Formats: sequence, C-alpha cells, structure tokens
Amino acid sequence: MSALRFSSRLNPMLSNRILSQTNLLFTLSSFSSSFKKTSKHLYCTSNSTLHNNGGTSLSLSSNSPLSGLEDELVGYIFGKKKATEVAHLVWRHVLRKGDMVIDATCGNGCDTLAMLKMVADESGFGRVYGMDIQTEAIENTSSLLDQAVTPKEKELVKLFPICHSRMNEVVPENTAVRLVAFNLGYLPGGDKSIITISRTTLLALEAAKKMLISGGLISLVVYVGHPGGREELETVEVFASGLSVDGWICCKFQMLNRPLAPVLVFIFKR
Amino acid sequence: MSALRFSSRLNPMLSNRILSQTNLLFTLSSFSSSFKKTSKHLYCTSNSTLHNNGGTSLSLSSNSPLSGLEDELVGYIFGKKKATEVAHLVWRHVLRKGDMVIDATCGNGCDTLAMLKMVADESGFGRVYGMDIQTEAIENTSSLLDQAVTPKEKELVKLFPICHSRMNEVVPENTAVRLVAFNLGYLPGGDKSIITISRTTLLALEAAKKMLISGGLISLVVYVGHPGGREELETVEVFASGLSVDGWICCKFQMLNRPLAPVLVFIFKR
Ligand SMILES: C[S@@+](CC[C@H](N)C(=O)[O-])C[C@H]1O[C@@H](n2cnc3c(N)ncnc32)[C@H](O)[C@@H]1O
Ligand SMILES: C[S@@+](CC[C@H](N)C(=O)[O-])C[C@H]1O[C@@H](n2cnc3c(N)ncnc32)[C@H](O)[C@@H]1O
Repeated sequence: MSALRFSSRLNPMLSNRILSQTNLLFTLSSFSSSFKKTSKHLYCTSNSTLHNNGGTSLSLSSNSPLSGLEDELVGYIFGKKKATEVAHLVWRHVLRKGDMVIDATCGNGCDTLAMLKMVADESGFGRVYGMDIQTEAIENTSSLLDQAVTPKEKELVKLFPICHSRMNEVVPENTAVRLVAFNLGYLPGGDKSIITISRTTLLALEAAKKMLISGGLISLVVYVGHPGGREELETVEVFASGLSVDGWICCKFQMLNRPLAPVLVFIFKR
Repeated sequence: MSALRFSSRLNPMLSNRILSQTNLLFTLSSFSSSFKKTSKHLYCTSNSTLHNNGGTSLSLSSNSPLSGLEDELVGYIFGKKKATEVAHLVWRHVLRKGDMVIDATCGNGCDTLAMLKMVADESGFGRVYGMDIQTEAIENTSSLLDQAVTPKEKELVKLFPICHSRMNEVVPENTAVRLVAFNLGYLPGGDKSIITISRTTLLALEAAKKMLISGGLISLVVYVGHPGGREELETVEVFASGLSVDGWICCKFQMLNRPLAPVLVFIFKR
C-alpha cells in the first residue's frame, strides 16, 4: 500500500484531480430524506441507490487495489481503525502541500509528524505550528522529528511550550491556517495529572475559529476515560453546536457501547 | 464512476479480495491512544502516521480515479453526502451476493431496491424480506421494483404489510440474516401521522438482534425532526449502548450544529 501511496504522490495529474474533488465536497447538501417529495413512488435521489452496484462494487477499476481510505472510515465503524487514524484520513482529504497547520497538543509528536508529512513541500513551503503546555512533550516531539524527517523538513515545524489558548500569539498574523488539530487529554507515558481542561480548550477553539481559512478544519480527538474528559467533550460539543450552519459543518463520530472510547469531532469551515 | 463500478463487479478476483478484506475489518482494536506506551517518545503505532503520505496520497494507483467510497464517508463529514448514502456504502461493505437481508421499513422502496441490487445473484440466490406497516408503502415499493429490476430479480423480494416487530414471523426460521436496515420516521409523500414508534422499534431491534448472523449489521437512519423522533433516537441509543462490547460494535454519526439532521447508527455483530 505504501508503494501505491508513493506512486500517487508523484503524479501531479492525479493530485490536481484529487484537489478539485476535495473542493467539490464543500457544497451543501440537504441531509434530509432521500426521496423526491413530488414523485413519491418512483424516484430515489441517492446516486448509489440506482446503480447496479453489488456487494463487490467498490468504485475501483479492476486493476486497482482496494483503496486504504475506505477501509479507514469503514474500519472505524467495524471497530478496526483507531480514532487517530480516522482523524489523519480526514486531514489528508483537506490538506495539500504548502499548507499552514497547527498541532494544538503535540504530546509525543505523532500528530505533528503526520501533518508535517502532509504539508511539507520540496521547495520549503508548508508550516506546522506545534504547541504543548509541557516542555517534556515539546522535547519528545522534537526528538521524534529528528528521527523521522530530514533537517530541512524539520525546519518547517515551529514548536512552542505554551498553552494552546495562546496560539494566536505565536502563529504570525494573517497566516492562512487550514487545520487546527487537538488530541486532548494527557501525555501518554507522561504525567497524567497534566491534562487539557475545558476552559483553555474552549479558548483555544475560539482562537482556532478566528484563524481558520475557508475550507479549513478543526479536528478533535476527545478522550472521555479520565476525570474531566466527559465535561471537556460537552464543552467541545456546545462550542460546535453553536456554530452557524451557513458557515460551518460540525459532526461527531462515537462508539455507543464503549463509553470510554475516544470521540471524534470535526468542525469544517465552509 | 458507474462504468468503473461495473468493471469491478465483473471481476471475480477483485471481489474475492474485497471479501477477505471485509472480513479482516472484523478484528478488534483498542481504540485507545495511538502510542506504544512502553516507548513513549519515538513510536506512533498508527500505520498512516509514518508513511510519507502527503495531502494527495489517497492510496490509489496513479491510473485509478478517485474511489467513490472515500468520498461518501468523507463527503458526509463535509456535508455533501446524505445519511442514506452513507448507510448504503456501509451495507455494500458488509453484503455479498446471495445474502439474506431485511428492510424493516420499506417506505417507497429505495432502500429495498438498493439492497436487492447488492444481494441478487444470477443463479437466484439472495433474498430481501421487506416490511412496512402501511399497505401503501408496500405498493410503492412493489411498483418501484417493477420499474427498476427484472421480474426474476423481483422474485427475490418478499414484501409484507406488517409491523417490523413481527419480522421473526415472516422470515423463515434459521435464515442467515446479514443486514437488518431501518429508515425510521414517516413515509415521504404519505401520511405523516404514521411513524415508527419507540416501543415497536425496540421490539424490532430485539428481533433483529436474535436473527443476525456473526458479521451482520443492523443499520439505522434515525430522523429527529418530527415529534417522537428524539425519543426514538434515545431508545435506539439505549439499545445499542447495552450490547456487550465482546459481541457487538455500535457507533453513531451525527451532525452537531444541525440538530434536526438524521443520525446514523450502526450495530455490527462480531
Ligand atoms: C493526548 S496528548 C497529545 C498527543 C499527541 N497529539 C501525539 O500525537 O502524541 C495531549 C497533550 O496535550 C497537552 N496539553 C494539556 N493541556 C494543554 C494546553 N492547555 N495547551 C497545550 N497543550 C496542552 C498535554 O501536555 C499532552 O501532551
Ligand atoms: C422513512 S420511511 C422509510 C423509507 C424507505 N426505507 C425508502 O427507502 O423509501 C419509514 C417507513 O416506516 C414505516 N413504518 C412505520 N411504523 C412501522 C412499523 N411499526 N413497522 C414497519 N414499518 C413501519 C412507515 O410506514 C414508513 O413507510
């Protein structure tokens, strides 16, 4: 699969096509029922309904391998894919080389690394602004990058040991931010008493909202297994629910019979 | 895109590969954090993290068009795809030719038709048991099928004007049911006072739970814009939340800033 990713990455025609298809996704849909009300018996407006598409038709040409992407979201539904993997998948649909992005909770740097790979551009464009309230996390992120990327790529990452509610102080004014990602909770392997908290998470969301460009995304992986986690999810939901339908698309993915499983929230600016 | 669907449908090698990948999805994952706890700084266990996959890498070979599937789930996130389209996508990942499925709310027949196309097999295998409490809905479904499928395909559909809580009375005993789909609410274009109600929806869910084979799915599109809709969603959630984690994977997709948008619930039997 990684070989195939590599081949598509090198094909500028494909990447253009993907970008325009990504843009297409931004149109509004009604989300109501799937029927034309005026002609009740005979029409199903859903494209997928009337295609002669059997259980094996995955919209792939016969010489194409299964796309890894469909597996990631459907895999989440079927309990196989992790919440963070689904988040990365969604980022990948939004981001392009040269983008400016923010990792609001660097932790051990896995998300920082993933987004760097998505935005780093050979000619030195693309920028990741990473922050974490713990110096230890910033150090972990920095050493992960030392191992996983070239010095030139690492230069595209700016790390700040600050509270993410202050992101507007470190990201240069008028930066066209396309992604602000939060992976809430505590530092894995670190001090579990240092966690994100509702008050500053909300301030950070407000800051992110102001900085995001049209077509940009706020992505949150919310852990509810630790004290305060559920309250923090509630804060995120109230924030998202209050955004105007005209300007924002906000959705939530959650497991129902695993109350402690992380919850995914995506806040997309039209 | 439909041409491509067609070509993959005709390729038995591909369909075998897809089936085995679908089965792979059934393994359990931890859904916890994405880090190896024992080696905190340096490892990100997520596959997708360490690949050198930029914004354009969609795991497609360079001569393959964008897969329609990824668009459907990501399109839902971005407000483009309807809830019913996402449901159909998920069915398509679970179903194979020759399967036995139940449409618990036929309505105008769009879902019945979609699932028939997924399970109908040239040698006459595959069965759709459709039910609706309204004779009008059963008639609408029947006439949609008359228009859209061959008489031979239509024979694979058995329609019953009954309450779905009685599904076990009409589906032959020991039928290996792989999908029970609910599209709750009222008949579009019909009498809006005849709606699914919590009590019988719950009875139907209990019946579906008993009939479903391992690897099968209960799929629900829940409308919350009409009186009783929110209570019905609550009933569905309580049902799903109560299922054992060992036996079932239950998840919910929902829009946060569109409180009246339909909610998707998938209940997957391991
Ligand atoms: C779950 S971890 C993040 C994991 C990380 N994204 C990764 O890929 O390894 C949450 C992080 O948020 C940090 N944090 C807690 N409160 C914060 C705040 N107010 N501002 C910024 N970071 C904070 C913690 O120190 C911790 O490292
Ligand atoms: C939203 S519509 C279904 C739409 C349909 N799946 C389609 O694709 O056209 C809901 C349907 O549920 C039916 N219904 C209501 N209560 C029911 C019950 N107890 N048992 C079976 N069907 C019921 C209604 O008559 C209505 O046709």
